[in-house]
Amino acid sequence: MFLANIDPDLQMEVLRQIRKPKLVACDTMNFWIEGKRTSLLKLLGMVDLIILNEGEARQLTSQPNLIKAARMIRELGPSRVVIKKGEHGALLFGDGSVFVAPAYPMETIVDPTGAGDTFAGGFMGHLAKERKTDWTTMRRAVIYGSVMASFNVEDFSLDRMRRLTARQIGARYREFVAFSHFA
Amino acid sequence: MFLANIDPDLQMEVLRQIRKPKLVACDTMNFWIEGKRTSLLKLLGMVDLIILNEGEARQLTSQPNLIKAARMIRELGPSRVVIKKGEHGALLFGDGSVFVAPAYPMETIVDPTGAGDTFAGGFMGHLAKERKTDWTTMRRAVIYGSVMASFNVEDFSLDRMRRLTARQIGARYREFVAFSHFA
Repeated sequence: MFLANIDPDLQMEVLRQIRKPKLVACDTMNFWIEGKRTSLLKLLGMVDLIILNEGEARQLTSQPNLIKAARMIRELGPSRVVIKKGEHGALLFGDGSVFVAPAYPMETIVDPTGAGDTFAGGFMGHLAKERKTDWTTMRRAVIYGSVMASFNVEDFSLDRMRRLTARQIGARYREFVAFSHFA
Repeated sequence: MFLANIDPDLQMEVLRQIRKPKLVACDTMNFWIEGKRTSLLKLLGMVDLIILNEGEARQLTSQPNLIKAARMIRELGPSRVVIKKGEHGALLFGDGSVFVAPAYPMETIVDPTGAGDTFAGGFMGHLAKERKTDWTTMRRAVIYGSVMASFNVEDFSLDRMRRLTARQIGARYREFVAFSHFA
């Protein structure tokens, strides 16, 4: 279950309506971190995972170092934390380990609007497809999130996503492996 | 051969004194890009590889996108370009391919001074040790550069490097693999 970025009181209300979700993830933003902090902290105690960007992670914790910030966020509830860094990739924290992912190298970015939401969609979509939430699957989910976001920024609105095929997603995932593996 | 960051005229003078170097790499900085551009461009026609940071790559090419900037730099001479992004990792360009490397996740940074030079030392050191300059070895060299830089920032001056052992370097390289592989 993914609680997208709305008022944390509403996120809790949505959560209440789902019976026994296998995994609860949420997103948030500066507006709620500042204006609805108490509700947000309550929500964090009820989720397994949070996906947020580096600015939000720093704002939530008042901690500039992202490794330390992630630890503080995990202490607030979610056992796993994904911190998105836009063109610089993403970090996944959990179980005493960390996964550092670069971003897919992009030469042409038409419009970054919606990249974060698309990342979350690709991430959750991979977990849902695999029906698994283990550490290995979650690492790959970060890459699928990055892959989906990389497509989304190639055009305005959802235009690129409308034309996107499973074959293109698979090809870019394999490119990602080729561009980033080294051992 | 590594031509560290000095006046490009002096870098060429040093280069002239070495007979048949297997690989010539250079570094540079904003000061020479701005004040000694003609000499620097001449030098770039004589090197195989350049290591520079993202700000320098953008300054040299007037191109904000690093993929495009790297292509422009390759057209100036070096067949391979390493762009360092500090805490966000590094990019290696060459032969129609790219290698994207995240940075080693650091919780405590005592002093970033010298991180770039240490990266270059680790990078060149790995090539020298392996006696190879192929694409696979060069990718690993980027990781060794990152590993060495990550140690250097853990203390002031060269204090951490003085205490560093080969075993610690190997352990951190393996940690890097564990933190970043996903396929």
